[in-house]
Amino acid sequence: MMNKPLATIVSAGCSKFGKRKGVMARELLVEAFEEALSRSKDPDIRGKIKIGIFGNFSEYFEHQAHVAPIFSDWLGFHNLPSVRVEDACASGSAALRMGILAINSGLYDVALVAGVEKMNNRTTTEVTDALMSASDIAVEQWSGLTFVGVFALMATAHMHKYGTTEEDLALVAVKNHRNAYYNPKAHMQKIITVEDALKSRVIAWPLKLYDCSLVTDGAACLILAKPEIARKFTDMPINIIGSGHANDHSAITEREDITSIPGIKIAAREALEQANIKIDDVDVFELHDCFTIAEIIAYEELGFTEKGKGGKLIEQGETDLNGSFPSNPSGGLKAKGHPVGATGIAQIYELYLQLRGEAGQRQVKGAKKGLAQNMGGSGLTHFVTVLEAEK
Amino acid sequence: MMNKPLATIVSAGCSKFGKRKGVMARELLVEAFEEALSRSKDPDIRGKIKIGIFGNFSEYFEHQAHVAPIFSDWLGFHNLPSVRVEDACASGSAALRMGILAINSGLYDVALVAGVEKMNNRTTTEVTDALMSASDIAVEQWSGLTFVGVFALMATAHMHKYGTTEEDLALVAVKNHRNAYYNPKAHMQKIITVEDALKSRVIAWPLKLYDCSLVTDGAACLILAKPEIARKFTDMPINIIGSGHANDHSAITEREDITSIPGIKIAAREALEQANIKIDDVDVFELHDCFTIAEIIAYEELGFTEKGKGGKLIEQGETDLNGSFPSNPSGGLKAKGHPVGATGIAQIYELYLQLRGEAGQRQVKGAKKGLAQNMGGSGLTHFVTVLEAEK
Repeated sequence: MMNKPLATIVSAGCSKFGKRKGVMARELLVEAFEEALSRSKDPDIRGKIKIGIFGNFSEYFEHQAHVAPIFSDWLGFHNLPSVRVEDACASGSAALRMGILAINSGLYDVALVAGVEKMNNRTTTEVTDALMSASDIAVEQWSGLTFVGVFALMATAHMHKYGTTEEDLALVAVKNHRNAYYNPKAHMQKIITVEDALKSRVIAWPLKLYDCSLVTDGAACLILAKPEIARKFTDMPINIIGSGHANDHSAITEREDITSIPGIKIAAREALEQANIKIDDVDVFELHDCFTIAEIIAYEELGFTEKGKGGKLIEQGETDLNGSFPSNPSGGLKAKGHPVGATGIAQIYELYLQLRGEAGQRQVKGAKKGLAQNMGGSGLTHFVTVLEAEK
Repeated sequence: MMNKPLATIVSAGCSKFGKRKGVMARELLVEAFEEALSRSKDPDIRGKIKIGIFGNFSEYFEHQAHVAPIFSDWLGFHNLPSVRVEDACASGSAALRMGILAINSGLYDVALVAGVEKMNNRTTTEVTDALMSASDIAVEQWSGLTFVGVFALMATAHMHKYGTTEEDLALVAVKNHRNAYYNPKAHMQKIITVEDALKSRVIAWPLKLYDCSLVTDGAACLILAKPEIARKFTDMPINIIGSGHANDHSAITEREDITSIPGIKIAAREALEQANIKIDDVDVFELHDCFTIAEIIAYEELGFTEKGKGGKLIEQGETDLNGSFPSNPSGGLKAKGHPVGATGIAQIYELYLQLRGEAGQRQVKGAKKGLAQNMGGSGLTHFVTVLEAEK
């Protein structure tokens, strides 16, 4: 039997992703929020929102902390109680989780949950430095290990232990680029071949340029409401029926096996149990493909296939739009882009479109249930969210 | 009639505040958490905690974002779902507010709420630069206006409009230093005179060195539980009976009057209405005295006296330990210190001691109800919390 939804998504918006010159994070948020306002049945939905929860990763990019009241101001509120939540690349999902708590607390009926990052006003070195602050300074930062380095280690071990190939990694990139081609909001709308991916320059072997997600500017937002009042704002409510949150040790050296990311499994179990469904019941997935190997490991942790067979799954096309586990129809972090704080919310935005049948040429046919998996750092923070279109 | 408490504080801890050489933020948190563990009746309270919410302001100080899973690790948890919340100098209270939502959501019975900042591994210039990131880069940062500058403008206007004097400001510092003398955890245990304060060097006129809070390293934590189960963990539960949260425009130029900080009033009204009490019913206060003028304005916004008469109130000794509105028995940000992310939680820690009668020589006699007021930036973010010792 289905439990009562945790909260209902009554509207959503997303900015164009890309290198957004001449705009600040706050302006990207306004772009996303205007879409959300325009989708609401109630023209005064802004007046109903009583809390703003903002996922935003780094103060480095714009030399701006304390973003919550500033963002609220720019979105046209005055005196909207607001907070910023930060959990590295899972900052957006952390904000969503706090939004779910807010709705369930009984203190709020309607909440704005948003994520944003403006990254392209810094050099690549500065961006790398800022991203590094998401790993433990006492262990990984001091060793000089960057995130692409960490995931390259995972990939190398996975190849050694399970026979995963560079082609398997490339196939993830090819699929996600193909999906993004049909997503007008994607950072890159460019179809690539396995050869393109394999021939791109090595960043940290076996990961090449096309195995890496993009440095993207973008914002996304959701308006959450108590399920009981959702139909005041929309005729097509999307319910959050499961929400899982897990952590792991901060250093990969403390984990038993670097080919696994166990926090994904723990968060997914919590979310699926709440939703009272199995992974096979889910029609469409948004996965955290910060690097192609991360998507392959996610297949395994989520139970699309046995441990070690993630590479085979992509070879068989099972995660294509018409496969058994359609993954990253949006194009994923790989091709839609990865504006850090926005990513978790943008994943939910894509599922929102998919479950409403509004995803155009990348629509997964008849999708009724969706799952988003969002990760912070090299597997320290995990959120899994399960959505369902209300009948 | 009293409403049901929002949550109950079943334990609390606080590190020594000061220039804590050779320790990281995580180690300060461990120090605070060990005190909280030792105060619990249940020796396994750690095992009952199911979420960690950490207030922490700046990634600059330790080049460390994504602190939540790292802090959880260091506190001896494995896989404790955790998030970081940031709201500048109100980050600790923002974490507490999220903790209150967590308890009221029904998803958590016991939550750890903590705040920490390690600031003294940076130079004064670097600290000033990091603190500046809490004001709007599009307006105040670019103008070169630092926080002491903003509060100096407020003080000048207050002096001009209401006749507040430099001596009044000095009296706030003298009182808070006197209280801190009796607080073994305070950063500075040093009694000062009005003359000392007036003769200290000018930072931004009329604010002098002794009008400014301290750059401090420190951590504090609270263990919250559902009121129904609080007595499993403590024989002296401290209930949160009111919690207010407000914001204001991000730039002081957008406010009608810079001698007022209206968000304090809004947050206080929400908290007091929830608690169903009046300001006169409160026995002890912890106020956000980032600069002495801020404490005087807080007196007025909270309704200790009429607008403009805050200076008179301190002259009359009404906010001394034995006055009508005993304020900052801990020594406040001024003398106990202001480790940004820890401050909001450390205020609650002081009230926890006061309401339990454990505050030693700075005890406000017979205190049963307490109120904490914590602010982010130059008045953008506001939290007011009302506590009561359970009978």
